[in-house]
Amino acid sequence: MTSFYLEQETFEPPGAVGTHCILELYGCPAELLNDADQIQANLRAAATEAGATLLQETCHRFEPQGVTALALLAESHISIHTWPESGYAAVDVFTCGSHTQPETACHFLIEAFRSRQYTLHTLRRQPPASIREVSRDPVAA
Amino acid sequence: MTSFYLEQETFEPPGAVGTHCILELYGCPAELLNDADQIQANLRAAATEAGATLLQETCHRFEPQGVTALALLAESHISIHTWPESGYAAVDVFTCGSHTQPETACHFLIEAFRSRQYTLHTLRRQPPASIREVSRDPVAA
Repeated sequence: MTSFYLEQETFEPPGAVGTHCILELYGCPAELLNDADQIQANLRAAATEAGATLLQETCHRFEPQGVTALALLAESHISIHTWPESGYAAVDVFTCGSHTQPETACHFLIEAFRSRQYTLHTLRRQPPASIREVSRDPVAA
Repeated sequence: MTSFYLEQETFEPPGAVGTHCILELYGCPAELLNDADQIQANLRAAATEAGATLLQETCHRFEPQGVTALALLAESHISIHTWPESGYAAVDVFTCGSHTQPETACHFLIEAFRSRQYTLHTLRRQPPASIREVSRDPVAA
């Protein structure tokens, strides 16, 4: 089977914050999409690939199959919702900060879940200009 | 101050699953965007407004300000990332299933955070056709 993909990416102006990747994964092996431990490990690795800092994570297994996992990042979040019976996963990688590479995380996940087809859309979230001057510490109050 | 908003919504074909609302909230009072307990309460209420079932939630407070909260739903997720100093919040409401109304949840959040401006974009996630025949139980294995 040859690999097929559709990719659409928008230009990210220098200094912009807030890039939200909407990733659909098709043709993934069912067992990969139903292994909650592996899915969480993949999200942790994806956060690292993005240059982001994982702060919290949560995961839920559905009956008879399917997993949702959320990774709370210092720079926003990664989410995945899987339907193993359809070989499908809906992924979001939303990161803020010029030091992050959310598309790199997406390409890691495409490989990690052995997706045979995918679509990747990159949206620029629209914060006010004032936010670009803001820095904050991930350590909780 | 008059209220201003930009709203773009796409047509959702009957039987489709996976509606992802990308909501930017502007002009919100800082104190509302820095109150982690109230933010979590708003997300719970938004889940109810959407007709969705909350399964898990997680929240993180940043220094000197800002909150991220994630709600894991039986039908996908709601996320919010706030920058109180800019009056800005980036929200996602992603729900699957024909019984959910993610836009209703968005309008609830616009009101709950007293947003003076917002943008709402609704994306249709693109699952394979096979997924439309699938049902699953939110109870974990």
